[in-house]
Amino acid sequence: MKQGYFITFEGPDGSGKTTISTKVYERLTKHDYRAIYTREPGGSRIAEKIRDIILDPSNTEMDVKTEALLYAASRRQHLVERILPHLANGDIVISDRFIDSSLAYQGVGRSIGIEAIWDINMFAIEGRVPDLTIFLDIDPELGLARINHRQFKDRLDQESLDFHQRVFSGYQLIKNQYQHRMAIFDATHTIEELTNEVYDYIIDWIARRESNTVD
Amino acid sequence: MKQGYFITFEGPDGSGKTTISTKVYERLTKHDYRAIYTREPGGSRIAEKIRDIILDPSNTEMDVKTEALLYAASRRQHLVERILPHLANGDIVISDRFIDSSLAYQGVGRSIGIEAIWDINMFAIEGRVPDLTIFLDIDPELGLARINHRQFKDRLDQESLDFHQRVFSGYQLIKNQYQHRMAIFDATHTIEELTNEVYDYIIDWIARRESNTVD
Repeated sequence: MKQGYFITFEGPDGSGKTTISTKVYERLTKHDYRAIYTREPGGSRIAEKIRDIILDPSNTEMDVKTEALLYAASRRQHLVERILPHLANGDIVISDRFIDSSLAYQGVGRSIGIEAIWDINMFAIEGRVPDLTIFLDIDPELGLARINHRQFKDRLDQESLDFHQRVFSGYQLIKNQYQHRMAIFDATHTIEELTNEVYDYIIDWIARRESNTVD
Repeated sequence: MKQGYFITFEGPDGSGKTTISTKVYERLTKHDYRAIYTREPGGSRIAEKIRDIILDPSNTEMDVKTEALLYAASRRQHLVERILPHLANGDIVISDRFIDSSLAYQGVGRSIGIEAIWDINMFAIEGRVPDLTIFLDIDPELGLARINHRQFKDRLDQESLDFHQRVFSGYQLIKNQYQHRMAIFDATHTIEELTNEVYDYIIDWIARRESNTVD
């Protein structure tokens, strides 16, 4: 059986990743694509337990390298239990965040370095990077203005503008470094516009993959 | 202020690590050495939360690499929050297990490889290996016969004899590879004998360190 496609959504906080990825996923299933929707950190029973430790706002004493290792642990479990079996089954796997989030948040946002974060993540995912990454690009101030309306803020939402600006600059690096698998969209467009743009892009991308055209 | 000493206890399950390390610690404090006692996985609030996920017998679907990353995460937090501050304060830190346990259990017992486990642990501890490791040597069958009397068995206690034999062979490798910091004791001796032997060794080791003699 042919492998499915692993498609991730990335971008700074407030870029609309969760909203757009959910809508795109729903439209894919409505059009009879066999797809699953998942998210990070979390995505499986054990991975969600790790997520709870990572995001708990009371864990203020958490060291940045502890956090990075917990993300890698959660990602490993998510990959093995959920993503790989669905890909083996030929399904499209849509994930809200994956390795690029760790490169941007822990590598640059927390100043650990992209290479060190890449290394512990390669231990975790053994080279299984996404086939396609939908990158929702937004200015950090605008993104933060959007998340400031949220009722519940997790441990990362509560970080300073300075942290989010480093994450933003990290994403700019990653977007260029992995451009062979990146599709970049302007996250200031409306939800409806973005859903259409991203959905159309994915359908076209799949068609090109299935006709064996180089993309 | 001069740095304290970081002393770990290692050895296969049932070798008596917890009993002997506790008794040695108590005798050190009785003789006015400034010492703290800690253990892995765990040793700080967040590290204990991670410990709960690692040892929970219901987490049967946990992947071996997830487990290895969780141990490294827990170790990082334990090191930063508890071990390093006490060492900086000049205290003796006695820890029931540390990096060697991961090399033996995850590296060899889980067949991930000692080098890969070393690498993710170097991310976590940045080279801060123990100054002295008390190694309690015991045959795996004998060690397992001892732990079989335990009422509560955690996820690792429940592993097969085959797993524990691999851990044992891992410990034999590590004991040789890091012999410059290892002191090896015969764990078939009585608790009283071992406590005396280990205590005397540590006192002598500290005296040699403080007189700047090469050890």
